Amino acid sequence: MRFSQLYLPTLKETPAEAELISHKLMLRAGLIRKLTSGVFSWLPLGVRTLRNIEKIVREEMTAAGAQEVLLPIMQPRELWEESGRWSIYGPTMMKLTDRAGREFGLGPTHEEVITDLVRHEIRSYRDLPKNLYQIGTKFRDEIRPRFGVMRGREFLMKDGYSFHPDAASLDSTYQAMYAAYGNICRRCGCTFAAVEADSGPIGGAQSHEFMILADSGEDLVIACEACGYGANVERAEGVAVPAPADAPAATGGTAVHTPGIHAVDEVAAFLKVRSRDLIKTMVYVGDGTPVVVLIRGDREINEVKLKNFLKVNELALADDATVAKVTGAPTGFAGPVGLTGARILADWTVRGMINAATGANRQDYHLTGVQPGDFTVDAWGDFLTVAKGDPCPRCGKFLTARRGIEMGHVFKLGTKYSDKLGATYLTEKGEGAPMLMGCYGIGVSRMVAAVIEQHHDEQGIIWPREVAPFSVIIVALGKPGDATMAAAETLYRELARTGMAVLLDDRNERPGVKFNDADLIGCPLRLTVGGKGLARGVFEMRERRSGTVTEIPVDNPAPAVALALMAQHP
Amino acid sequence: MRFSQLYLPTLKETPAEAELISHKLMLRAGLIRKLTSGVFSWLPLGVRTLRNIEKIVREEMTAAGAQEVLLPIMQPRELWEESGRWSIYGPTMMKLTDRAGREFGLGPTHEEVITDLVRHEIRSYRDLPKNLYQIGTKFRDEIRPRFGVMRGREFLMKDGYSFHPDAASLDSTYQAMYAAYGNICRRCGCTFAAVEADSGPIGGAQSHEFMILADSGEDLVIACEACGYGANVERAEGVAVPAPADAPAATGGTAVHTPGIHAVDEVAAFLKVRSRDLIKTMVYVGDGTPVVVLIRGDREINEVKLKNFLKVNELALADDATVAKVTGAPTGFAGPVGLTGARILADWTVRGMINAATGANRQDYHLTGVQPGDFTVDAWGDFLTVAKGDPCPRCGKFLTARRGIEMGHVFKLGTKYSDKLGATYLTEKGEGAPMLMGCYGIGVSRMVAAVIEQHHDEQGIIWPREVAPFSVIIVALGKPGDATMAAAETLYRELARTGMAVLLDDRNERPGVKFNDADLIGCPLRLTVGGKGLARGVFEMRERRSGTVTEIPVDNPAPAVALALMAQHP
Repeated sequence: MRFSQLYLPTLKETPAEAELISHKLMLRAGLIRKLTSGVFSWLPLGVRTLRNIEKIVREEMTAAGAQEVLLPIMQPRELWEESGRWSIYGPTMMKLTDRAGREFGLGPTHEEVITDLVRHEIRSYRDLPKNLYQIGTKFRDEIRPRFGVMRGREFLMKDGYSFHPDAASLDSTYQAMYAAYGNICRRCGCTFAAVEADSGPIGGAQSHEFMILADSGEDLVIACEACGYGANVERAEGVAVPAPADAPAATGGTAVHTPGIHAVDEVAAFLKVRSRDLIKTMVYVGDGTPVVVLIRGDREINEVKLKNFLKVNELALADDATVAKVTGAPTGFAGPVGLTGARILADWTVRGMINAATGANRQDYHLTGVQPGDFTVDAWGDFLTVAKGDPCPRCGKFLTARRGIEMGHVFKLGTKYSDKLGATYLTEKGEGAPMLMGCYGIGVSRMVAAVIEQHHDEQGIIWPREVAPFSVIIVALGKPGDATMAAAETLYRELARTGMAVLLDDRNERPGVKFNDADLIGCPLRLTVGGKGLARGVFEMRERRSGTVTEIPVDNPAPAVALALMAQHP
Repeated sequence: MRFSQLYLPTLKETPAEAELISHKLMLRAGLIRKLTSGVFSWLPLGVRTLRNIEKIVREEMTAAGAQEVLLPIMQPRELWEESGRWSIYGPTMMKLTDRAGREFGLGPTHEEVITDLVRHEIRSYRDLPKNLYQIGTKFRDEIRPRFGVMRGREFLMKDGYSFHPDAASLDSTYQAMYAAYGNICRRCGCTFAAVEADSGPIGGAQSHEFMILADSGEDLVIACEACGYGANVERAEGVAVPAPADAPAATGGTAVHTPGIHAVDEVAAFLKVRSRDLIKTMVYVGDGTPVVVLIRGDREINEVKLKNFLKVNELALADDATVAKVTGAPTGFAGPVGLTGARILADWTVRGMINAATGANRQDYHLTGVQPGDFTVDAWGDFLTVAKGDPCPRCGKFLTARRGIEMGHVFKLGTKYSDKLGATYLTEKGEGAPMLMGCYGIGVSRMVAAVIEQHHDEQGIIWPREVAPFSVIIVALGKPGDATMAAAETLYRELARTGMAVLLDDRNERPGVKFNDADLIGCPLRLTVGGKGLARGVFEMRERRSGTVTEIPVDNPAPAVALALMAQHP
C-alpha cells in the first residue's frame, strides 16, 4: 500500500476528547474517529489491526475445537423474557420496536439465542459436546462511555458458547478455552493475568478473567506472588476470622457527644483513635429491603460480594429517610449496638475488634469501648474489598495489586440457561437431561486499545508483530521521480511479493514528517531509502521497539527483512 | 473437520416456511436457521460459505484500489436530518432511542456516515480520490421479509463509497468497481447481467445493477440480444413516438352506455375491441397532488418512472373520493376527453392511437372513436413498463426479458450528499468545491442464496469451487475402528495438510445416509473409501456437478484431488 493513496489522516495534536494514551494514539495514528458518544468509525489502519486480531482469535478458536457461527443482533423480547433477563439487563440493553410493534433487544450477549438454537437441533448425547463461537457487533448502552473503544456502546466481540453432557466434558472445553485465551494474549504480545472473577449477570459457578496488565486498566487485579492466587478485586477473597476465644465481655459502650461529626476520619480524629478502631456501619437497600453491613473503619465494602450474598438484582446505599427509619438517627451516626431496624451483616474484619468506636444511632453521638459482644450479628461473612498487603486467602502471604484491562472472560454457566429455556438432550440411557453450558468472551475492539496501552512510547505506537497493520514501512527520502524513490519502489515491490504487509511512504513530504508518522503508526520495522546508503548498496533498517539500526543489502533484501521481522516481539 | 463433531444439522424434510429452492436447501443443508421474521442465525456451514464470499469480495476490492473501513451501525438522527433522508427512509429504517433520549437509526446504508467522516478529514485535491468499503451488518424493516436470506431484515452487505475531484476520476473508479463486480460474480460461479438501473432513494445520475439470472429472481431484466442493451424493468426505456403527421381530426368521441363495466378486459369485450384499442386512464396522487396518466389499454404504467418524472417521495393510486373529484365520475369511468381536474400525462404508447375507446368521466359510460386530438396532454413521456417483445430503445430489435436477483448495485451519486453535508475540498487553484461521489453495494448474505439458485439439482446444492464451504467430502463406508475408516483418516490428514478444506464423514451411519448428505451439502468432490477399492489401491472420486466418477491412487492422492478440484466450475 502506498501512503499517498492510503486513507490515513494522522494528527499532530492530541484531541482534547481523549484521556487514555491508547485513545489518544488511536486518534492520532488514524485508526478511529468518533461518530457519537461511545460509537466509532474504524479507518483502514484500524481495520487492518482488527482483522489481524480476528485472525489470531479464529486460529486459536479452531485449534481449540470451536466452530464459527453468526447469530443475529436483533433478538426478540420474548426470548429474553424466557431467561428472565429482559428486566435484569434493563436500560443497558439497546432496544427497538419494529413496524409491527414487536420489541427487540440488540444483543449485548447471545446466551438466549444460542440456547434457543441448540434446543431445536441437539437431541442426543451423540450430538454433544459442541463449541460454537462468533465474532460480531455487540451493543451496550453504557451510562458513561469512555476511553475510546475501551468502553464503547457499539463494539466487536468474540463470544463463544459450549454445550456438554457432563461436568467433565465442560471442564475439558473450559480448560481448552482458557489455554486458547492465553495463546491469544501472547500472540497479541500482551502481558496478562488469568484471575478468578465474579460471574456478574451472566451467572454460573466458575469464571476467570483475562487481564491485560496496564496502569490505566479499569479493573484491579489482586495476586499472590507466593502461591499464584489471582482474582479480580470484585472477587478476591477476604480471610475468614474465627470468633476469638478470649472475646471481652459486653459493656454496652460509652456514649460520647460528637456534634456534627460523622465521616470516619473526623470521628477518629475527634476521639483520638485510628480509623481502623472504628466499626463502620453502612445501610444498603437490596431489591427494596434495607440491610446493615459492618466493616472495619479503614476498609471498604465490596458491593459485588454483598449483592451475591443477598441474591439481589439492585443494590444501593440507603437514602437519608431509610437510614433514619432503620437507625432512628440521621445518616452518619449509625452503629450496631441496639439496632433492630434491619438485618445486620458483618465482615470478618470486625470479628476480633476490641474497644472500638461506632455510631450511637442518636444524632451527634458515638459509642466508644464497643466489641462484637455488644451487638447481634445475623451473619458474619466476606464483604471486604481486598487490597494490596492483605493476606492471601490460599497461603497467607501478602497480596499485591495491579491494574488490568479485561480482554476476556470465561464462565462455567452450568444449567442456568438450559434449565430456563428447556435445552435438554437424551442421555445414553434415554433419559432427558439439561445440557451443561460454558461461555467465553473476548473484547476484540478493546484488545486493539489494550495492546497499545502495553506497547507505546513518547513517539507513538509500537505494534507487536502479529497485530501490526503493516509489518514494514519504507521511507523514501527522495522526491517522486528521482533515483531514491525508484529504489524505494523496487524495494516495496520485492517485499510485497513475499506476502509481507508493506507500506511505502511515497508522499512528497520532508523526511522529518515521514519519520514522525512512521514512529506514530508504529510498524515493527522501518526501512529508509536514502542517497548515501544507496551509494554504498544498502538500506537502513530500524527496529521501532529497540531503536536498533542495521543495514541490509540493496540486492535481495527480502530474506534479511523477513528474518528481522521474525525476531520482533512477541 | 470431522462430520461427527461439526454442528451440521441436516434435514430430510423440506420445512414448510420455505418457498424458494435456495431457502429450502439452506435450511435442509444446515446453513441457516430462522430466529424471527427476516432474521437468521448462520450455522458453521453457512458461515464458511459467507467467509468465502467475503474473501472474494475483499480480494477484488483490494485489486480495484478500495480500502476497508468499518462504520457504525448506530447513526444519530441529526446526521440523517442533514441529508434529508430521516423522513424519506421512514419506517424502513430501524430506529432506537438511547437512555439519554437521543434517537438513532440502524444504518440501512452509510452515505451520511462516510460523508461526515471525510468532510472532517479530506481537505485537499491531493487527498483525492479515495475509495473506501466495508463489510458489515445492515438493517431494513421490510414490510414483508421473505425468501430466507434473499430479503431479510438483518443482513450482511459490502458497501463502498468513493470521493473524487472530477467526473473523470469518478468515472475511472466507477469502471473499476463495475469490473470488480463482474469478477466477483464470475468467481462465485454465477451467470449475470449488468444492467442500467434506477437509482431509487440513494439518488444520483447513473447506476447499474448486477443481476444473477434465475427464474426465481424478484427483478425483471430487460435485454437486447442484438445490441447488448440491458436494464432493470424499473429503468428499461420505452421508445419515444412522434406525433403522427396524418393524425385524424378530433371528433369528441361517441358516448356508449356501459352499465357496471369498467375493468379493461370487460370494456374491451363489451365494445368488441382489443384491450390495446383502449386508452387506460389512471389517477395517481404524488405527494398530495393528483395527476392523471394515460397508457395503452394492454400495457402497465411504470410507477418508478412516474415518481422520478414527478420528483415526488410518495406515489399511490388515488382513492375513490379523489377520482370522483378529478373526473366527476366513480372509479372505472375516467377518460382524458374534457378532463380538467388534474394535470394529464400520457405515455408514448397512446400517441399514435386512432379510433380508441376510453372512459367518459360519467358513471356507466365510455367513449368510442377517440384519438389524441380529442384531448389535451400536458406532457408526453415514457411511463411504460417495458416488456419482452418491445422494441429496443437503442437498436429497435425485439427485447427479451429474464428474471434476476440483484447481487450488487453501483451508482454515480455526483454531489448529492457532499452538497447536503458540505463535503468540500480545495482544488489546485485553492477554491472550495464539493467532492463527487460514487457508491457501490453487494448483498453478501443474499449472494449465498443467489449462488444456490443457479447451482443445485434434485439432490441438493452444487457449490462452485471458490464458494464451497468444503472442497472435498470423504465418505468412509466402514465403521469407527475398522480398516476403511483408518484409510479414510489417513486420506483426510493428507488432503488437509495441503490446505484443502476437507470434511470427513466419520459418522456411524449407513452409506445411503452419508451419500445423501454429501449430495445435499454439495461439496465439489466426493471421495469414497470402501473395502473393494482399497483392495485395488484406489479411492473413488465423484464430481458433484457432472456425476463423473474416476479413481485416484491410495498412494499420494493429494495431487490428483487438487487437479480435479482446479478443473471444477467456475
